[in-house]
Amino acid sequence: MNQSYNSSLLDNAVLQLSKLPGIGGKTALRLALFLLREDEESAVALGESIIRMRREIRYCSRCHNISEEEVCPICSNPRRDASTVCVVENVKDVLTIESTREFHGLYHVLGGVISPLDGISPADLEIDSLVERVGREGIREVILALNPTIEGDTTNFYIFRRLAASGVKVSTLARGISIGNELEYTDELTLGRSILNRVPFDNN
Amino acid sequence: MNQSYNSSLLDNAVLQLSKLPGIGGKTALRLALFLLREDEESAVALGESIIRMRREIRYCSRCHNISEEEVCPICSNPRRDASTVCVVENVKDVLTIESTREFHGLYHVLGGVISPLDGISPADLEIDSLVERVGREGIREVILALNPTIEGDTTNFYIFRRLAASGVKVSTLARGISIGNELEYTDELTLGRSILNRVPFDNN
Repeated sequence: MNQSYNSSLLDNAVLQLSKLPGIGGKTALRLALFLLREDEESAVALGESIIRMRREIRYCSRCHNISEEEVCPICSNPRRDASTVCVVENVKDVLTIESTREFHGLYHVLGGVISPLDGISPADLEIDSLVERVGREGIREVILALNPTIEGDTTNFYIFRRLAASGVKVSTLARGISIGNELEYTDELTLGRSILNRVPFDNN
Repeated sequence: MNQSYNSSLLDNAVLQLSKLPGIGGKTALRLALFLLREDEESAVALGESIIRMRREIRYCSRCHNISEEEVCPICSNPRRDASTVCVVENVKDVLTIESTREFHGLYHVLGGVISPLDGISPADLEIDSLVERVGREGIREVILALNPTIEGDTTNFYIFRRLAASGVKVSTLARGISIGNELEYTDELTLGRSILNRVPFDNN
C-alpha cells in the first residue's frame, strides 16, 4: 500500500495489518478504520492479546503443542496410548485430528515442515526431539501425518530416514486425502478413515 | 468460536481477532498461528501499532479528518476553495474523492452516518460542528457525499434540514452511482463525473 493517510500512526497500523496472510492494503485500511471507530478498550484488548500471546505462550515440553502447563492435557492423560505418536506440522492439525476421535495416542508437533525456499531446515523443527523421544519413551509406532505437499513429503522422508536405526514402526496416513490439499479442509470421515487405514511408510 | 486451544492466551487472541469485520474463527486462528511463527518483534510491532494508533491518533480541528497537525494539510492549503465543503462519512471517502482530482474544496468528515439500529444518533456525529462551521466560515456550498444507502440518505436529509436556516446551497452527488453501492468501489470516472454534475439537494 503506497497510499498515505495523513497520519504515520494510521499508516503504520495499516502496514502492520497488511503483513498478515490474506490481508491486502484495502482490507488492512478497513480493519484500521474499524479499530478507530471502536471503543479504545476493544482496540487495546486486541493489541495486548497479540503481544501477550506472542511473549507468554508456552509449549508442552513433551509434544511441543501449545499448553498452559509444563505438560499438555493430552500428554498427561493416562488413558491415551503413549506407545503411538502422531507427528503433525502444527497446533491446528492436532485439533483437526482430535476432532475425528479415531486417534488415541500422543502427538509430536514439529512446528513446520522442511522448506529450503522459506529457510526452514530440519534444525528449525522439533525433529531431534522426536528422535530422542522415540529412543527414550519406548514408542512403538510413529504415524507421519503431515500435509500431502512436496514439503510435507520431504519432511516425512527425512524423519523416516532419521528413525530407521531405532527400529520403530513408521506409518503414514492412507492416501485417501487428495494430493495438494490441506489437512484442515479434509472432511472428518475421510481423515478418520485414513488414520485407521494408515500404511507402513516404505509401502507408500 | 467455541473451540479451545489448550491456552487462554491463544484463545483470547483468536477471540479478539475474530471480532474484526470479515474475520471468522478459522481465519482468526490462522492469523494467530501465523503470529506465533513470526519473530516476536513483528507480532509486538503489530500489537503496538494498533494500540498506539487508537490511543494517539489526532483529528483535524476543522474538518475532523485524521491529521498529525492541529489542522490537516487539505484545510491549511491556501489553493483549495474554502467556500465549498464536501461532507463525507469517513477518512476513506476523503481519499476516494481526492483520487478523482475533480474536487478542490474542503471536507467535513462526519465520522459515520445516522443509524438508530447501531445506536448512532446525530449527536454522535460531527453535524453540530458542520452547522457551526457553515455559519462561521462563510461557506457557500455544502456537497453531501454520503454513501447512497438508507442511513446515508437519512443523514443527508437531516443535514439538509439543519442547514435550511443558514441559506447555504446544499447539493448532493449526481446519481450516477448505483443505489446500494459503497463509494469505495465506484470507479473514479463515474465518481468524478458525479461530483461535477452534482445537483441541488431538493431536486433529488
